[in-house]
Amino acid sequence: METVLVGIDLGGTNAQGAAALDGKIIRQEKIPTRSQLGAEAVLDDLARLALELAGGRKIAALGLGVPGLLDLERGLCVFSGNLGWDNVPVKAKLEEKTGAPVFMDNDVRVAAAGELARGLAQGCKDFIYLTVGTGIGSGIFIDGHLLRGPRWSAGEVGHMVLDPQGPDCTCGSKGCLEALASATAIAREGRAAAAANPDSILNTLAADPRDIDAALVFEAAAAGDAVAARVVETAMTWLGIGVANLVNIFNPRLVVIGGGVSLAGERLLAPVRTQVERYSMPVQRETVSIRTSALGDAAGVAGALELARRGLEG
Amino acid sequence: METVLVGIDLGGTNAQGAAALDGKIIRQEKIPTRSQLGAEAVLDDLARLALELAGGRKIAALGLGVPGLLDLERGLCVFSGNLGWDNVPVKAKLEEKTGAPVFMDNDVRVAAAGELARGLAQGCKDFIYLTVGTGIGSGIFIDGHLLRGPRWSAGEVGHMVLDPQGPDCTCGSKGCLEALASATAIAREGRAAAAANPDSILNTLAADPRDIDAALVFEAAAAGDAVAARVVETAMTWLGIGVANLVNIFNPRLVVIGGGVSLAGERLLAPVRTQVERYSMPVQRETVSIRTSALGDAAGVAGALELARRGLEG
Repeated sequence: METVLVGIDLGGTNAQGAAALDGKIIRQEKIPTRSQLGAEAVLDDLARLALELAGGRKIAALGLGVPGLLDLERGLCVFSGNLGWDNVPVKAKLEEKTGAPVFMDNDVRVAAAGELARGLAQGCKDFIYLTVGTGIGSGIFIDGHLLRGPRWSAGEVGHMVLDPQGPDCTCGSKGCLEALASATAIAREGRAAAAANPDSILNTLAADPRDIDAALVFEAAAAGDAVAARVVETAMTWLGIGVANLVNIFNPRLVVIGGGVSLAGERLLAPVRTQVERYSMPVQRETVSIRTSALGDAAGVAGALELARRGLEG
Repeated sequence: METVLVGIDLGGTNAQGAAALDGKIIRQEKIPTRSQLGAEAVLDDLARLALELAGGRKIAALGLGVPGLLDLERGLCVFSGNLGWDNVPVKAKLEEKTGAPVFMDNDVRVAAAGELARGLAQGCKDFIYLTVGTGIGSGIFIDGHLLRGPRWSAGEVGHMVLDPQGPDCTCGSKGCLEALASATAIAREGRAAAAANPDSILNTLAADPRDIDAALVFEAAAAGDAVAARVVETAMTWLGIGVANLVNIFNPRLVVIGGGVSLAGERLLAPVRTQVERYSMPVQRETVSIRTSALGDAAGVAGALELARRGLEG
């Protein structure tokens, strides 16, 4: 019987999945994540999605990206704020419900694997994938191996402190990269800048100052608003300092920036590259290139398929 | 014929070597590094040292730690400020001069391998060795593998920027960990604090304010001088923030701090641990312990022997 690989990128809002036959995607689907119904219902939905994607074929392996803290030895999601999960035995339950072997990892590491399989990082053994959205996370490949850490918590680059006197972070500390350069930070600084500068078109674009989000700040900056441009520049300068630190630590060949903020393209990359030029060591600087993701949010599903493929190979 | 392993830790001032037979060190020796005579003379001295340590036995492998930037594919020391070296073909020359296969790496990574072989990191696959002296460097083990980077320049944690408005760093940038927490930084801040506080015993301990170095600042702090204690506390707080960042990135089980500053023991560790508690993520915090090196400057030779052993094993 023909077998397929299935990959699912589970997010707080949606779950996106795809089935692949002989390395080609034959079917894709997206369903809402009904986390309000509890973990069992979400896992039922995922199993149903997997079986539908397989369309009657046997699932050789199911790869899954989970937005949370995992215990990969026991196959648990230890904690997920997005899903409201606590110690959910994801692997065992999904294997029971689908009859297929399940290989899972943290969603950002899975997206990094997607960049390696189908994105800009193809053929690159040493690269860092950064997702810059509501938060900032990373998936780091070293000589072709994914950095996970002994407790599967490596890669928390969003909580690298860059300014101990800086703004509060959701993690309880101050001046983390995430508190300085995420979409959340850009929105917060955009609202403050709009309030301090009544002439900024931020105040025209937003019906209510509370509607100012990162996308709107980027839009105002692109339209020539100096106040918004300064907010973007400051956040992206901090992102660049964070990237420079990672470049000094890992000496990677490639840094790929994904997540919502990466849609800003060159407006993002110019200040990031400037800081990397300024703060990274000569050899590191020569070795690395910095790009925005070409896959965008398709990286998660591509990575989940890759996880399934690697899992089968052992 | 009996064969031995030889390990040499080449420093800017001295080269320390040892020979080991069946895993036991049978001979040790230290010679001055005569870098003023040029690379060829230094390599001659190293070859002579290796042969003396071997005492007529065949050298199965020679491990070498080099204080500089290396090209491990071509066996070059690309650059060493300490030695005044530029593109020196260390491996080929030493193999020619000793007749033994030579395995080399950067001195800090070699010391990290020493901590793994004979120090506190024995049996630990995920650990970070930090040397805090004139500068700050690291050797990072991930799942038993040493992080080198594709251009062998990974681990430059001393140039992680923690305070973009901070003091100038030797690398040309500002507010690097090294500019905030190294022995050099402690000495600089000690001199400034002594000048600003005529009552500090720093002014009594030093015949000339220019004689104030890190050791003297630690001595004054240990003797109860509040001014010196504040200098130490500030530097070690920055070190703690740097360690917390690395703990968030790598999720290691162990951080070992070596180098001259580590001789301060608990005075060093207390503020470092406080910052790690404060700035690292919960799982990371639970996973890690932070210790000062028990090997001290013997880590380099132990690591060079380990490099020779691993090199032989392929």
